[in-house]
Amino acid sequence: MKIVPGDKVIYKFSPCMEAVMTVSPGDTVKVETNDCFFQQVTSEEQVLNEIDYDRLNPATGPIYVEGAEPGDLLKVKIVSIDVKEKGVAAVVPNEGVLGDLVTKPIIRVLNIEDGHAVFHGIKLPIRPMIGVIGVAPAEEDGQWATDSPWKHGGNMDTTDIRAGSTLYLPVSQKGALLALGDCHAVMGDGEICFTGLEVPAEVVLEIDLIKGKATKWPLVETDDYTAVIASGDDLDGAIYEAASQAVKHIKDSLGIDWEDAYIIASLSVDLKISQVVDPKMTARAAIPKYVVSTQKLIESV
Amino acid sequence: MKIVPGDKVIYKFSPCMEAVMTVSPGDTVKVETNDCFFQQVTSEEQVLNEIDYDRLNPATGPIYVEGAEPGDLLKVKIVSIDVKEKGVAAVVPNEGVLGDLVTKPIIRVLNIEDGHAVFHGIKLPIRPMIGVIGVAPAEEDGQWATDSPWKHGGNMDTTDIRAGSTLYLPVSQKGALLALGDCHAVMGDGEICFTGLEVPAEVVLEIDLIKGKATKWPLVETDDYTAVIASGDDLDGAIYEAASQAVKHIKDSLGIDWEDAYIIASLSVDLKISQVVDPKMTARAAIPKYVVSTQKLIESV
Repeated sequence: MKIVPGDKVIYKFSPCMEAVMTVSPGDTVKVETNDCFFQQVTSEEQVLNEIDYDRLNPATGPIYVEGAEPGDLLKVKIVSIDVKEKGVAAVVPNEGVLGDLVTKPIIRVLNIEDGHAVFHGIKLPIRPMIGVIGVAPAEEDGQWATDSPWKHGGNMDTTDIRAGSTLYLPVSQKGALLALGDCHAVMGDGEICFTGLEVPAEVVLEIDLIKGKATKWPLVETDDYTAVIASGDDLDGAIYEAASQAVKHIKDSLGIDWEDAYIIASLSVDLKISQVVDPKMTARAAIPKYVVSTQKLIESV
Repeated sequence: MKIVPGDKVIYKFSPCMEAVMTVSPGDTVKVETNDCFFQQVTSEEQVLNEIDYDRLNPATGPIYVEGAEPGDLLKVKIVSIDVKEKGVAAVVPNEGVLGDLVTKPIIRVLNIEDGHAVFHGIKLPIRPMIGVIGVAPAEEDGQWATDSPWKHGGNMDTTDIRAGSTLYLPVSQKGALLALGDCHAVMGDGEICFTGLEVPAEVVLEIDLIKGKATKWPLVETDDYTAVIASGDDLDGAIYEAASQAVKHIKDSLGIDWEDAYIIASLSVDLKISQVVDPKMTARAAIPKYVVSTQKLIESV
């Protein structure tokens, strides 16, 4: 298996990037990812504003995928996410949903034991996920710092991007140029305080390609549904984008009127919050597989 | 079992209302509820703006609960929700998340067969829920039309308010004065098109009382979590309220610093969308039972 080492990182998803490795569709690859602080935070006694802020949110890569061209869909099956035995969480004044209520900055380093993060005697079952994952953006979208989510992916902070799920990213540049990092051992939908439990990880991915089927936004497939992951300046904007694409997918794959697809969405699609704390906010619209299978949905794009 | 008939309805939750029945804590009661149109819509050929708009969102009740006083918490266990064999959904220009994309109004009447609503050959598994349920508001909150959600409950359109769940409503007036209606046979989180599958129903409730433990917003208990249900002028406002109360409940019940509770919330609490189409928007913050049990959470109020 090819391994992408954790010292090969980017801090921006740019239309033009130099690849650190080339893979072929069907390849399995192991990616060593760094935590969002590039492991600079290791103790609860550290002072957060003394770390190097130019090294936040590193994404390992980019990986060039043979044959990928603009208009294709990159299919990334997440085989496994192995996290280390410690994770970091932090609170910073004016950050997160309740930033105005924070009276002091704190860092917490939590042990991970037997699949649980332990804090104040509470055992939180870990559910490792990838925070940042994306490809080179389209020219017209320009470059995106790795702390932002957009149509290329990026910092989507979506709990569904976990082992067993499959992510579909619209390809905008030759080779796709995949990069990832910022794994969380556990996080609630919303990422309320602005960090999850931040961890370095080893991520195993199966990379494949679907020709000529690019979607407007990334999709993630779980056991139960296919979700459109969309971002916006606020949650209303993110929801509008996710819902409008979900209705379009239902309409196109079932071959029915838009208004009927709108009703099916209202009865069956769950609007979910991914994160509300990054420079853009991210929501997803989950289309149950009993309405349309992922394969049929993508075929109708 | 006492039965509250479906012709005893209110259209406003007011601080002062006349009860149609009195029950004691511990009583089980069956409530006949109407759909949001008061069953005026029965055919796909009807024209929506010809119905009587003064009869929208009827809530059956109010029910006076012996011993309930301001500062108490009304505990409402939802035993069962039996829905009829047909449901109505509708699309109206400028309504719902994508109201600007609607080109024509439509009504759809769906059959419910063997636990599934059938539409375009798709079988949607029904999950009956109560859309409108609430008590008399506090004087300072004034009266609320039944189409709005607020601290007294009302049109929360929250999918978790289903059989097996327990709803906790803060009591603001003597007797609590519970009323409910607007059941949906099935609805996705968000209620994208502005209706669920609207149905009349027979709802069986066990009504109980917790003295001196009133919360700021309603809570709903499921098998897995206790969720704070909060509303606001927009989703950001609803999320702020739900998240701030969730962090407060974690802090108070575990006896830890606010900042540590903020971190536990970020790692474990899911922010969920209830509805984004009513006069106020509603979100919920789901606190897992592995963090704190519902009983311990309420004891710490």
